[in-house]
Amino acid sequence: MSAHIGVTGLAVMGANLARNLARNGYTVALHNRSAGKTDALIEAHGDEGEFVRTETLAELVESLERPRRVLIMVKAGAPVDAVIEQLTPLLDEGDIVIDAGNSFYEETRRREEALREKGLHFVGVGVSGGEEGALNGPSIMPGGSKESYQTLGPMLEKISAKYNGEPCCAWVGTDGAGHYVKMVHNGIEYADMQVIGEAYDLMRSLGGLEPVQQAEAFREWNTTDLASYLIEITAEVLEQEDEVTGNPLVDVIVDSAGQKGTGRWTAISGLEVGSPVTAIAESVFARSISSQRELRAETNEVFPSGLDEHTPEVPYQEEGTQQTFVEDVRKALYASKLVAYAQGLDMLVSAADEYGWDLDLKSIASLWRAGCIIRADLLDTIMKAFDAAPEDRPKNLLLAEEFTEAINECLPSWRRVVAAAATYGVPAPVFSSSLSYYDSLRRDRLPAALIQGQRDYFGAHTYQRVDKEGTFHTLWSGSRIEVDA
Amino acid sequence: MSAHIGVTGLAVMGANLARNLARNGYTVALHNRSAGKTDALIEAHGDEGEFVRTETLAELVESLERPRRVLIMVKAGAPVDAVIEQLTPLLDEGDIVIDAGNSFYEETRRREEALREKGLHFVGVGVSGGEEGALNGPSIMPGGSKESYQTLGPMLEKISAKYNGEPCCAWVGTDGAGHYVKMVHNGIEYADMQVIGEAYDLMRSLGGLEPVQQAEAFREWNTTDLASYLIEITAEVLEQEDEVTGNPLVDVIVDSAGQKGTGRWTAISGLEVGSPVTAIAESVFARSISSQRELRAETNEVFPSGLDEHTPEVPYQEEGTQQTFVEDVRKALYASKLVAYAQGLDMLVSAADEYGWDLDLKSIASLWRAGCIIRADLLDTIMKAFDAAPEDRPKNLLLAEEFTEAINECLPSWRRVVAAAATYGVPAPVFSSSLSYYDSLRRDRLPAALIQGQRDYFGAHTYQRVDKEGTFHTLWSGSRIEVDA
Repeated sequence: MSAHIGVTGLAVMGANLARNLARNGYTVALHNRSAGKTDALIEAHGDEGEFVRTETLAELVESLERPRRVLIMVKAGAPVDAVIEQLTPLLDEGDIVIDAGNSFYEETRRREEALREKGLHFVGVGVSGGEEGALNGPSIMPGGSKESYQTLGPMLEKISAKYNGEPCCAWVGTDGAGHYVKMVHNGIEYADMQVIGEAYDLMRSLGGLEPVQQAEAFREWNTTDLASYLIEITAEVLEQEDEVTGNPLVDVIVDSAGQKGTGRWTAISGLEVGSPVTAIAESVFARSISSQRELRAETNEVFPSGLDEHTPEVPYQEEGTQQTFVEDVRKALYASKLVAYAQGLDMLVSAADEYGWDLDLKSIASLWRAGCIIRADLLDTIMKAFDAAPEDRPKNLLLAEEFTEAINECLPSWRRVVAAAATYGVPAPVFSSSLSYYDSLRRDRLPAALIQGQRDYFGAHTYQRVDKEGTFHTLWSGSRIEVDA
Repeated sequence: MSAHIGVTGLAVMGANLARNLARNGYTVALHNRSAGKTDALIEAHGDEGEFVRTETLAELVESLERPRRVLIMVKAGAPVDAVIEQLTPLLDEGDIVIDAGNSFYEETRRREEALREKGLHFVGVGVSGGEEGALNGPSIMPGGSKESYQTLGPMLEKISAKYNGEPCCAWVGTDGAGHYVKMVHNGIEYADMQVIGEAYDLMRSLGGLEPVQQAEAFREWNTTDLASYLIEITAEVLEQEDEVTGNPLVDVIVDSAGQKGTGRWTAISGLEVGSPVTAIAESVFARSISSQRELRAETNEVFPSGLDEHTPEVPYQEEGTQQTFVEDVRKALYASKLVAYAQGLDMLVSAADEYGWDLDLKSIASLWRAGCIIRADLLDTIMKAFDAAPEDRPKNLLLAEEFTEAINECLPSWRRVVAAAATYGVPAPVFSSSLSYYDSLRRDRLPAALIQGQRDYFGAHTYQRVDKEGTFHTLWSGSRIEVDA
């Protein structure tokens, strides 16, 4: 009997994807560098479906129906290249190699090109949802050739998460598009987590709400427009009591956030394609700052945290004002979150231009509705916002009918919260940066005109005029007459 | 007669450096791909010193004393490699090739390594100051081997800008260090220009000061701690009247700021080395946003600029309040500027770690005191702030004795201005992001603890505890017991 697909690399993610495939009726050939993991998987879960045990890549390839599909799930980087190198001589034209790991999109582009030259399909697949998602239905973002998706797609759709019965899997675009979209998902995830962190900090420092009270607030928020997996688990985390001290767990966790690099990649790519992803970049930087523990300790000695002597007393801790403040924070969080999504989606458009992808924002939003970390009903609304002929789609998420009213409704709260953060010294980098972004975009005239004047002064970089075509330069060091440049 | 140095590439920057060298007593051999530029230079400025006309690179090399010094001043990128390729076969061991263009530091690292293997010195030199600086004394940031600096350094120091008689030129570090430091200079320059832009916008939109009144304010500020070339030219630009319309020139310039890429490189490198350069990144993004003209026009239709209906009236336009507001803005500008410099210098420390450079912040600050775009007396103070044994130097510019008092003095104004910007809808991304940075660094506890909790919940990323060593994980989906991870 021929297997439908082979999986090589049976650490937890690979094993769970293999089980997910088997549970969905596919015969899955298994391979791992050491056969121990293969045997363990079959012993523990062999009854979940049809597995074929193999000990070498040659055996794995041998066991597959054609065109062969081999899913690689090994550590991103050199290990992927190593497997590809061993695998490709064993394959025939038209076979499909799938990298479902967290590969950098540029590497996927390079690999896809190399394999294409050999007549093979290389499919870089972004998978989000962690171990549990891999087993029970992740969000799946496959790139590569459209042709490969015809036979591979149905399998991936079958094992993916479903939102109201619709699969959270669709062909994203050629070569590195799948991994790119997954990367941007993660960048948005960074911002999503950071704005929740800022809301928590403000409600605690200024609103006086203890973590357990906040758990309640977040649970309530989870019934509003904010409803999402991250809001849901925030309530869980905030409610958690530390067994050792009896304090809220969040108070015993060291406040230095780790990062694995995908947020950083997103911010870097945003800079490279010229897309202003301020919310994502500020979230990455916020994690970096939190990790500078020595510097923070010294700064805290020189400039103690807490209110400055000139600062008015915090007015948000009494009965009525506290409730108003919490509602203000909720709205600021929602508006900031919309900006983060707007920027992430804008970045996809710029990247599509840069890399020649035909990305469909509507379809991409649909993939994030379930299975992944940023899953939320909001994504369904975002999907609807882009549900129009390409030329009729909004140029930016904030301009979508579905959201303009929400922005207007949140705006006074958003302004109050950012002003309060500045006044009372609570850092809210993404709340404030997002508000700046909104205010910049809507502004008649930006001070960029002055910057152009400065650049023309010191570097003869020239400028354009609002009232006529052309490029101009003022002879600053001489007559100060304007000339055509 | 042998020439001291050869210059190839005689567009305006190369020609001006050659003239600067000749004026300082060096015999300069000249070469250009087409001899026309060489002849033109000699005809117009041959009386400024000793020039040797050559028509080929072989002739140029032939004309030089040993070790030979050849300065390349061509467009960054492939043209530099092309010249190097033609040049190196003509050179002997110990000769020095100098790239004084705006090369990307990674390319300089690559070229230095390649030439080192051939027994040649390759010196990547950052030069700031534009055409005028090149002629009369730029800020010069040379990288490369220390050995090459022994014979090359004195020449570069001689033609460099001087601050109180001290040359703004010193050996920066090996391989790409010179171009890297120049890149960070430019990143800081972006932030410096952006904060001036924000100050201008706030004073105009909220303070009601017309450009010509602001020219006066900037001139006054140029007698304070803010004194700098950029403040000086801002006054000139704001005062400039457009001949065509009679309006302030700044009002007829299109408000879309251009960029040549060095600011973007700086922000990207900050992300890569894990250094939170929020002010530089926000400045780069602000330019990107300003360039999205179509999107801005549409957003302006949906969300008109100007005050929202809920916003209180602007209170800064009357006699006394206006003066207070202007002074608040000045202080906010100064504090934000200090943050930008602190971040730029921090980034240098992280990069030195990453690339194995032995960067000396004191020396680097000294190079920026004159000749370059960010030149200012402030740099002399920064230099003094780092004038101590390495272990006694402040960990961050904000912690230097020279600046802590200034920060404390500016703080209430800084907070008021950022709060006002948020309240009245004037984008001030660097003012507010810098304040967030300061507030984050000084803070006892950051919400990064919550982020670590979330990461542990959805990805088992583990966390550390404040009260004991180790790495921990809570079994979120099961017993919710904490385990060693």
